[in-house]
Amino acid sequence: MTNFLPRSVRVLIEELGRLPGIGQKSAQRLAIHLLHTPDSRVKPLGEAIINLRNNVMFCRDCWNIAETDPCGICGDEARDKSSICVVEDVLDVVALEKTREFKGVYHVLHGVLSPINGVGPDQLKMEELFARVTGGLGVREVILATNPSLEGEATALYIQKRLLTEDVKLTRIARGLPVGGDVEYADEITLSRALRGRGEF
Amino acid sequence: MTNFLPRSVRVLIEELGRLPGIGQKSAQRLAIHLLHTPDSRVKPLGEAIINLRNNVMFCRDCWNIAETDPCGICGDEARDKSSICVVEDVLDVVALEKTREFKGVYHVLHGVLSPINGVGPDQLKMEELFARVTGGLGVREVILATNPSLEGEATALYIQKRLLTEDVKLTRIARGLPVGGDVEYADEITLSRALRGRGEF
Repeated sequence: MTNFLPRSVRVLIEELGRLPGIGQKSAQRLAIHLLHTPDSRVKPLGEAIINLRNNVMFCRDCWNIAETDPCGICGDEARDKSSICVVEDVLDVVALEKTREFKGVYHVLHGVLSPINGVGPDQLKMEELFARVTGGLGVREVILATNPSLEGEATALYIQKRLLTEDVKLTRIARGLPVGGDVEYADEITLSRALRGRGEF
Repeated sequence: MTNFLPRSVRVLIEELGRLPGIGQKSAQRLAIHLLHTPDSRVKPLGEAIINLRNNVMFCRDCWNIAETDPCGICGDEARDKSSICVVEDVLDVVALEKTREFKGVYHVLHGVLSPINGVGPDQLKMEELFARVTGGLGVREVILATNPSLEGEATALYIQKRLLTEDVKLTRIARGLPVGGDVEYADEITLSRALRGRGEF
């Protein structure tokens, strides 16, 4: 239906439309925006996409993306290798690192268990996690920091069951009211979690 | 703050974040999505961006983007050259063409008058429009199809004033309730426009 546009513009709209969260209309608007943008700003974007994988690898310890293997975190002598924080994705590491709270290392699963989407343990870095924990590397705590969603909880539960017999402390990040949140508007499940997880004042 | 990500990923996040409507979080998510996408799907996107301007030109009659000059619409013998529909942007042509209602030709202004953003008539294809209308090409009707926004109305008004003395019919696209809309929830201005623009039943 956009036959009225030049071929190169149609191709770009089609490619942009494949990206998650970008519909047909947004793709059109982005393409026209880029058409109005000077070449000196458009080319860097195209090149950044093409060069995305250059010099990017997975850290074979934590499976985070990095420029070195082991990554900067796993290679850091100051980080506590006995504490592993299990996350779903790379951006979760970024978010947790921003808190400057955690001094251990990570394990990136690259997804969550989701039978409906055909994602089982084999599609995730799950065995790699178990190998790390049971590999005699002195891991003492595994913090399950998957999202507090249905799938994130199921994934945490799966890991917990698999590691139950190991001599390792299993913890789950706290679920409760977000800071700045409102008891009145909190959903029942969050509120009941906040109650159950209450601490000493 | 995303220092924990490889350089090429950070560069892409920065470039994506410059796009309109894509914030820092969306840029991060898109970059990570692309990192998980096979190269055979990533490269075409990058190339489509770099090649965007290849073989794209402006039609020097209507200033639409096209692969030929004049464009397919202006070059079409069957189109009525005496009727010019003035639009803000290229995508407006696409939207209007989809209706299959309009058999005339277009004039793309490439923007609207917006003093606050430093956009005056000289930044738009305004003189080109006046030259077309007054150039003895037999133009009989100019349909002002700029958006029914403050700036779109001001732009339509400006064109109307400039062409008032010319022997040309000036019309404005109807403003009223969108099909499927609700009188109860329509804003007052739309409703008053719908009343004023009422037609015989």
